Amino acid sequence: MKPKLKIIPLGGAGEIGKNMTVVEYDDAILVIDAGLMFPETDMLGVDIVIPDIAYLLERKDQVRAIIITHGHEDHTGALPYVLPRINVPLYATPLTRGLIEVKLKSHKLLKTTTLRTIQMGDTIQLDPFTIETFHVSHSVPDGIGLAVTTPVGTIVHSGDFKFDPSPVDGQLTDFARLAQLGARGVLALLSDSTNADSPGYTPSEQTINESFARVFALAQGRVIVATFASNISRIQQVIDTAARFHRKVAVVGRSMVDNVKMAAELGYLRVPENTLIKVEQAHKYASNEVAIVCTGGQGEPTSALSRMANHDHKQVTLTAGDTVILSSSAIPGNEELINRTLNNLFRAGAIVFYDRMMDVHVSGHASREEQKLMINLVRPKYFIPIHGEYRHLVLHTRLAQSLGIPAENTFVVENGARIEFDESGARVEHNAVTASDVLVDGLGIGDVGTTVLRDRYHLSQDGFLVALVTRDAHTGEIVFGPEIITHGFVYTAEAGDLIAGTKQVIIAALDKGSRSSGQSAKLKDVLSQYLYAQTKRRPMVIPVVTEV
Amino acid sequence: MKPKLKIIPLGGAGEIGKNMTVVEYDDAILVIDAGLMFPETDMLGVDIVIPDIAYLLERKDQVRAIIITHGHEDHTGALPYVLPRINVPLYATPLTRGLIEVKLKSHKLLKTTTLRTIQMGDTIQLDPFTIETFHVSHSVPDGIGLAVTTPVGTIVHSGDFKFDPSPVDGQLTDFARLAQLGARGVLALLSDSTNADSPGYTPSEQTINESFARVFALAQGRVIVATFASNISRIQQVIDTAARFHRKVAVVGRSMVDNVKMAAELGYLRVPENTLIKVEQAHKYASNEVAIVCTGGQGEPTSALSRMANHDHKQVTLTAGDTVILSSSAIPGNEELINRTLNNLFRAGAIVFYDRMMDVHVSGHASREEQKLMINLVRPKYFIPIHGEYRHLVLHTRLAQSLGIPAENTFVVENGARIEFDESGARVEHNAVTASDVLVDGLGIGDVGTTVLRDRYHLSQDGFLVALVTRDAHTGEIVFGPEIITHGFVYTAEAGDLIAGTKQVIIAALDKGSRSSGQSAKLKDVLSQYLYAQTKRRPMVIPVVTEV
Repeated sequence: MKPKLKIIPLGGAGEIGKNMTVVEYDDAILVIDAGLMFPETDMLGVDIVIPDIAYLLERKDQVRAIIITHGHEDHTGALPYVLPRINVPLYATPLTRGLIEVKLKSHKLLKTTTLRTIQMGDTIQLDPFTIETFHVSHSVPDGIGLAVTTPVGTIVHSGDFKFDPSPVDGQLTDFARLAQLGARGVLALLSDSTNADSPGYTPSEQTINESFARVFALAQGRVIVATFASNISRIQQVIDTAARFHRKVAVVGRSMVDNVKMAAELGYLRVPENTLIKVEQAHKYASNEVAIVCTGGQGEPTSALSRMANHDHKQVTLTAGDTVILSSSAIPGNEELINRTLNNLFRAGAIVFYDRMMDVHVSGHASREEQKLMINLVRPKYFIPIHGEYRHLVLHTRLAQSLGIPAENTFVVENGARIEFDESGARVEHNAVTASDVLVDGLGIGDVGTTVLRDRYHLSQDGFLVALVTRDAHTGEIVFGPEIITHGFVYTAEAGDLIAGTKQVIIAALDKGSRSSGQSAKLKDVLSQYLYAQTKRRPMVIPVVTEV
Repeated sequence: MKPKLKIIPLGGAGEIGKNMTVVEYDDAILVIDAGLMFPETDMLGVDIVIPDIAYLLERKDQVRAIIITHGHEDHTGALPYVLPRINVPLYATPLTRGLIEVKLKSHKLLKTTTLRTIQMGDTIQLDPFTIETFHVSHSVPDGIGLAVTTPVGTIVHSGDFKFDPSPVDGQLTDFARLAQLGARGVLALLSDSTNADSPGYTPSEQTINESFARVFALAQGRVIVATFASNISRIQQVIDTAARFHRKVAVVGRSMVDNVKMAAELGYLRVPENTLIKVEQAHKYASNEVAIVCTGGQGEPTSALSRMANHDHKQVTLTAGDTVILSSSAIPGNEELINRTLNNLFRAGAIVFYDRMMDVHVSGHASREEQKLMINLVRPKYFIPIHGEYRHLVLHTRLAQSLGIPAENTFVVENGARIEFDESGARVEHNAVTASDVLVDGLGIGDVGTTVLRDRYHLSQDGFLVALVTRDAHTGEIVFGPEIITHGFVYTAEAGDLIAGTKQVIIAALDKGSRSSGQSAKLKDVLSQYLYAQTKRRPMVIPVVTEV
């Protein structure tokens, strides 16, 4: 029996972020992307979320390579966690490689990693896979999609794409190659679903140039533009506009400085001579000769922009004449942080522009009409939406069906599903493979799960109360306590009566006759009831009855 | 010396929600609105936020009345907390009164409250104030703005308004009255700033009728529309569209059922005969003869819509043929909840429409061109933006200045500021009055503040670790412990080594010679360092060293 071709999304299917797709044939596995996701609001205390690679660890020797489609965190951010456990060659285009190198360096993983540079359009032979790469336009240059040809057929993976008719780097999504692939015959298309709920076309990056020009033309003082550190295209637009309006550009924020240096060296940022200056030199110029590009588009409290807004930045002090552009859109969950930063910028007296007011940001992802174009060019037999929350996958699938792909050839699958292809057709098994969220918290990778998060949530809502009593083992008399330790429950400085009442309840509830071991459960119930009746709150109650 | 006229925002200035404005002259105080705000994400465990009424409590006998401009929570929600402490007459239009009565009833406050009905256009005489009311269109009917004439001049308070040219109830904002007031002379305009960052005009409610009609026309099964319980206008639109497409309407969700009943009785909902049915009767009709209107537009986990999406609703089980419209826009901070509900609706197989996809919601607030119209009609001497975060107040103020109001006559003020007017002019004192956020958590009103929230945040991120040791008072020998109690820090089932290591650290750190009282601080440092080195986490560490 001939082996089957298997596609397994380990991340990014049913969520936006931590993208990772497995393509498997016989004893060979190809991994596409290794991204991270920022924790959702209820993942309390968690730093980042990465894909579950248990499936790969069990088949370590079969993994031939990891190919990264572009240099954004949601496609590269898990590499520092994956590479120490699965050290296989990494393939990436030059800018993507550069962005990865900046990251691996900070994790001290650069020396132990095998990095292979590919150019857009290159073909990589990794038997039994022939991997062709084609350019897709996105909000970072040098992004690619992949056509993976296997003995069963060709799989096209779109990467993150849009069909920007006038991209910043002048490089269009490769229509011709996509049409060629379509003509040659494509078994399955895995396509970016992020904007499957956005009608029409995503506006071109060109619209931002116009907004930037309007703002720069009128600005009396400095112009400060905040965006993602990896958004090389947006940084290029700031540099272009600044040069046009005879302003020097200072880059602020460690990660952005590193990325800009690398991208300029590789030729992915066109920087006119004498345009870039160090932020320390900015004071030598008149304020209307200076532009600053910095991190902080998501309102992150430690970012350059938030610090500037809070008068807490060492090098840049906001003044009333400054103009600030927030060139980003909110990742769901960040709205409050962004609003706070905006309010603080206004408090500092800045003139501020953000997306509700002006076209200062566009999405990097295809809207519905572009998604249709991708499907019509590739004309796949099977359609698998990726990179999207469940609703995006469904909407994208309905779109594919409206273009004539039979419903039975479209698959809405979430992380951990396995789609198998052979000559007779395709079949899906949902939840075939472990693919849960792996939460990274400090040094812990995966130890924070349901139990710890449930406790953290409980503590976050009502705090805790520990009640300590020590009794004489023979007489049952209390020799220490009751002592109450409570945090996050009530304002203890004004809760003297409640604490005294709690101690009375403990003393009354203790049964002198019985052993301490049996008392804790009873005490917990009695205390919980008392505290709820008094406060209508439910702290975590932990009685400790000991005997000496 | 003649008394000054004072305006003091106690809520809603520098934030969206919990609106409350004080107008004071001589020994008389008038309170406009008494709203609540939903807690921000970092107000952990808090139920609602209400204005600080300390200023009013100190001048209890001077408060003549509370006037409510319309029946939304952010204008009425603090009444159950204010009325028991300041029991003055409440003035409201009939529908607003009805919505308040539903609320006061559930708080058992209806009997003890003096409610006075006013009709739009009425004038109320409460010496020294003459209060004229005028209609403003908003997303609930029967909303009013106020013109308060005092010995110093007339203050116009816009309420929440827009200039909808085709409102659901047919009632336009009262241009004529506003123009008359302008002609008569207005000292100061307090105007709704919510959408001061939205260019142009807010689309008419009419656009929603068109979207609803398109959805109803194509729906094969039931149509379920989710919105706010108090959004009587939107409910009217559902009823109108359902009647047009020959569907019965069932109302689901306790608060919405109460509001619909009341609004229909008062004549604010036009319900064609035999249109409303009980949800229990819905099964008697074909699914394409049924529409449901329910709560849950913010993704609230306990709302009717979320329960339906989770297959957890007693009366409505979602099936693949159902169509769901989310007729609302996200309050910042609710995006993740809404996305989850949307994903679950798609998982249940429903056809779902929401604001990114279609015009199924419009704002109830004026956009910039309408804000200009308000200013141009009223032509105030002084301008005070209200109902908005800081950035909205600034943007609204700049707008007023662009229309010719001198900068020195515009005041960007936040809660607790006092603006005084007399014949010589106006002056502002910021932070003149206590007006902090009052957090309601269970039975506690105001006891949860910085200290408790800081503890809750700490616990939410890294949990806690209590270390217990009991020593012999004479020998210093350990007679109990070290015992470790920890939650929210690590997954204890797999943290045996860490716990054992922690105990070792405690034993090593205890100094037999010294008294227990001095040991806790030292132990806390040593433990914190050890735990951070092991985990890169910082739990709340509480050592308890006792002696018996």
